[in-house]
Amino acid sequence: MGRVTARRKVIRIRDGVVSSRPDTLVAEEPLEISLNGKPLAITMRTPGDDFPLAAGFLVSEGVLAHASDLQSIVYCAGATADGSNTYNVVDVHTTPGVVIPDITLERNVYTTSSCGLCGKASLDAVRTTTRWPISDAPPVRVEPDLLARLPDRLRAAQRVFDRTGGLHAAALFAEEGDLLDIREDVGRHNAVDKLVGRALQNGDLPLSRTILLVSGRASFELAQKAVMAGIPVLAAVSAPSSLAVDLAAETGLTLIGFLRGTSMNVYAGEHRLTLRAAATQG
Amino acid sequence: MGRVTARRKVIRIRDGVVSSRPDTLVAEEPLEISLNGKPLAITMRTPGDDFPLAAGFLVSEGVLAHASDLQSIVYCAGATADGSNTYNVVDVHTTPGVVIPDITLERNVYTTSSCGLCGKASLDAVRTTTRWPISDAPPVRVEPDLLARLPDRLRAAQRVFDRTGGLHAAALFAEEGDLLDIREDVGRHNAVDKLVGRALQNGDLPLSRTILLVSGRASFELAQKAVMAGIPVLAAVSAPSSLAVDLAAETGLTLIGFLRGTSMNVYAGEHRLTLRAAATQG
Repeated sequence: MGRVTARRKVIRIRDGVVSSRPDTLVAEEPLEISLNGKPLAITMRTPGDDFPLAAGFLVSEGVLAHASDLQSIVYCAGATADGSNTYNVVDVHTTPGVVIPDITLERNVYTTSSCGLCGKASLDAVRTTTRWPISDAPPVRVEPDLLARLPDRLRAAQRVFDRTGGLHAAALFAEEGDLLDIREDVGRHNAVDKLVGRALQNGDLPLSRTILLVSGRASFELAQKAVMAGIPVLAAVSAPSSLAVDLAAETGLTLIGFLRGTSMNVYAGEHRLTLRAAATQG
Repeated sequence: MGRVTARRKVIRIRDGVVSSRPDTLVAEEPLEISLNGKPLAITMRTPGDDFPLAAGFLVSEGVLAHASDLQSIVYCAGATADGSNTYNVVDVHTTPGVVIPDITLERNVYTTSSCGLCGKASLDAVRTTTRWPISDAPPVRVEPDLLARLPDRLRAAQRVFDRTGGLHAAALFAEEGDLLDIREDVGRHNAVDKLVGRALQNGDLPLSRTILLVSGRASFELAQKAVMAGIPVLAAVSAPSSLAVDLAAETGLTLIGFLRGTSMNVYAGEHRLTLRAAATQG
């Protein structure tokens, strides 16, 4: 598609010196995701990997769990005045028999009728909705030293970021530290959806022997996406939110934050880390 | 409300040394925004400033433009099993006579029936929807040196970030550089909505003599929020997206990116910057 980046004129000011030149920006375009012919959501995303994005989004929403749940994904054509395809609308069709859960107003937030909208209700909804509860046997065991090496591998593999500085990245690593896949997007959630959707299409769900690394913060939504795909370890370069930590504690997800150099904070699921007890303080 | 931060246990690993202690995290909770009694959207936000958040969200959606458009905002009570208020649902009532525009699937994305979903349609929708077209007379004029000082002021005023590292910030400055308001939130859009909503409540829209500074990237959505509030200058510490630049060019918004030290990139609306022509190169 060649629309991952776009060129625009920019005026640069450096210590008072003004110059003008073309600059490479990360491309952003709306994508409408339809489910069985009915519009479901619109997300602002970086074009490319649109089918995995749509599939991964629907894994997070509890619609898809197996490759066989997915019958087809197509671009809807002919929506513009001149009949051309904008490649900004995809229609996902589920295999007959797949039960579609209630999907609420906006992506990734669930409410239950028995409870007012609150963090706890959101946690319960994810825990009861996921088709891939995190219960790894034999357990995934990760060395902190291995985790410490992952951010550099993520940055080395980020291609578009180098040119634009404008992308969030998400990478999937095997438990031994091998890079399995990396996706970049103007939206942090989209990058994870693209990873998860690709895995669904390849028949690789649940991702029960993997580590998900995200370039920014760990929000509730990102933790939710890990849980819905059966990923046991989520590591973030930046801070987690309270609700992300609560969701991790509730579902058994290992949640790492502030992963920088040889430092990191473990907020939940520390049983998957090989910590030397002798060194434990406090 | 006292829910801006939350305490959780964290296991810290520093060069192989493991310790455990309580940590302060940024709080994240869902907020449902209802409009005239009908659920409209759910956003994950940092509690606090919920009424300005709801009001600002509705400015971005083209529902509210004047303080007088807003009749009331209340927390909806009694939604939990025990009848207590979660303070996570707000209902906004508009003054009789206020026309409510069509609001689509998800916040901040517009489609037009005459065009397939595309970036251009999104731009057109914002341009035609805003009640506060950016046409400043006398024009706002900003010195690059003044812009260069704003990020430090933003950081100095960020209170919660210091403790949690987990917050996006948005600040509103007068054209002379005085800090007018600053808001922090786990969601970047929410921080801007809180600023704009407060301004609406105070009768300060359009914000036609102000500069909006955001701590992260400049997405389409953030540029849209600036345009809908009549803000003439948007500056971001990090990169803009292509669609943010296009929206700025289309609406007359001045868009600055990579504002770091005395360096910055100007992507649109450079006529508001006092650039010394003699120093222009390229």
